[in-house]
Amino acid sequence: MIDDQLPDRVRVREVGPRDGFQNEPERIATADKIRLIEQLAGAGYKRLEVASFVRPDVIPQLDDAIDVLHGLDVPGDVELTVLVPNERGLQTALEHRETFHDVVIFLSASETHNRKNVNRPVDDSLATLERMAPVIKDAGLRCSAVIATAFGCPYEGHVDPARVVELAGRLAAAGCDELGFGDTTGMANPRQVRAFFTRALEALPGVELTAHFHNTRGQGLANCLAALEAGITSFESSFGELGGCPVPPGATGNVASEDLISMFHEMGVDTGVDLDALLAAAREVQSVLGRRLTSHVLVAGPIAWGERAGV
Amino acid sequence: MIDDQLPDRVRVREVGPRDGFQNEPERIATADKIRLIEQLAGAGYKRLEVASFVRPDVIPQLDDAIDVLHGLDVPGDVELTVLVPNERGLQTALEHRETFHDVVIFLSASETHNRKNVNRPVDDSLATLERMAPVIKDAGLRCSAVIATAFGCPYEGHVDPARVVELAGRLAAAGCDELGFGDTTGMANPRQVRAFFTRALEALPGVELTAHFHNTRGQGLANCLAALEAGITSFESSFGELGGCPVPPGATGNVASEDLISMFHEMGVDTGVDLDALLAAAREVQSVLGRRLTSHVLVAGPIAWGERAGV
Repeated sequence: MIDDQLPDRVRVREVGPRDGFQNEPERIATADKIRLIEQLAGAGYKRLEVASFVRPDVIPQLDDAIDVLHGLDVPGDVELTVLVPNERGLQTALEHRETFHDVVIFLSASETHNRKNVNRPVDDSLATLERMAPVIKDAGLRCSAVIATAFGCPYEGHVDPARVVELAGRLAAAGCDELGFGDTTGMANPRQVRAFFTRALEALPGVELTAHFHNTRGQGLANCLAALEAGITSFESSFGELGGCPVPPGATGNVASEDLISMFHEMGVDTGVDLDALLAAAREVQSVLGRRLTSHVLVAGPIAWGERAGV
Repeated sequence: MIDDQLPDRVRVREVGPRDGFQNEPERIATADKIRLIEQLAGAGYKRLEVASFVRPDVIPQLDDAIDVLHGLDVPGDVELTVLVPNERGLQTALEHRETFHDVVIFLSASETHNRKNVNRPVDDSLATLERMAPVIKDAGLRCSAVIATAFGCPYEGHVDPARVVELAGRLAAAGCDELGFGDTTGMANPRQVRAFFTRALEALPGVELTAHFHNTRGQGLANCLAALEAGITSFESSFGELGGCPVPPGATGNVASEDLISMFHEMGVDTGVDLDALLAAAREVQSVLGRRLTSHVLVAGPIAWGERAGV
């Protein structure tokens, strides 16, 4: 069956503890966050996005970032990522630099989305990120940058892939180790994804490119597949299908980690994550949130047969 | 963007009026069935599976097959398919042969699944289908055969692709015009799908091969993508994500037509189906059933921006 050319192994960053918890209407207790993050690390994740240094009056759900970071006890080979929205957030984060390994900074490829999100033109955001990346690197930390609306904008529609690659090149030149491309409102399709990442991999050698898809129109896993086939080996997803600012209410946001991990494993592509242990973490967050989550593998169970399948 | 080799156009058969309606706990009124089928034809479908000649005591939801078929008024270029489970059902169907165009017969690739489904060994079912296919052809009708559990069995696990291709070859030799491959319980993965259809297309020239995927573990569209990339141009799906015998309860069954059509169109692959008209039909069946359906594009709306997206 291995007549194609897929990698044996990919890296998956779990973003639920930041992106997911941020989107919950109720703030999750700090002790619950710590327990869930440690459970995810125990499931085998080596990359976890766990906190954000944003203004607590804007995102109260993450106002305990410092307590979470100082409270965590995870294996030494687990890379913890924090998100910072601006230079002020970065300064606060750097006061706790011993508690994490990687800082993610972000902008939108689309002018209108960037203005609505951070009230600035894209070029202003880019200039700020170009100042922040060296500061992060000088602090001995890894630096990631995410380009949101990389595959389409809910306000403008088409986003020029040449512009996305140009922004990525500027960020790489500023010192970023990793560049993430976010399909923020689920507008990407697999043909577009394959073409984009083929181009981006050629244009951006020496920097890690990460795919971050949403399942808004059900194409999340198909887009991950297209990215994998184009040569991408770094992905992000969210356990329990949490987060991703789903619009409209009730829609799906981030690709569910358990669905993505299941697909990769069934394809013979290892992730290092134990699916059963991940499902246990997803059931645990379901219990903490007090509502039923609807990722496919959580509902249907992993692919199995005979006694395990209960048939 | 068109540097890959995808077809400009594919055929999609809508199976909701048979597979979907059969799986509803309450029998849908005949007039509602007819109205919904005509609405789907109006949306541009040229292939609709609309009825089944099964025992009414076994599947009362479809006991009005004859009334539905005689009541339908669809354009002359719309191909209507009926499912028959056995020779007795075929005889009844042929009494109404002027009301449809295509008969679908079926077996399972897996021995245990076939025995549990129709209480016979696979070879017995195959012999029956080999008798039925010429009868269907002699009646001037098109003949399709579906091989269920073609990508995995919930009882046995792995299904040998060589056995599936062998069964398909026997059915093609018996006169079948089309061979469908069903991922009955959602066990397929894209790598397997690509390898299988590459092999099947080589082994079975001159017969139409159709992909029928379930979204049980969320991989439905990714598997359709893999089939498309392997060269498959015929697909089946169900509007409103109806049907497909989802196991366990609450799980997803058939791939949702609106999600599949949306993906193909975004990729520049035409289906002949008007997505907005299809969504109207999905909303109509939602109203008939009195419950909310959860296909992604029905919930989130089609990919759009600006005024249309309401942002």
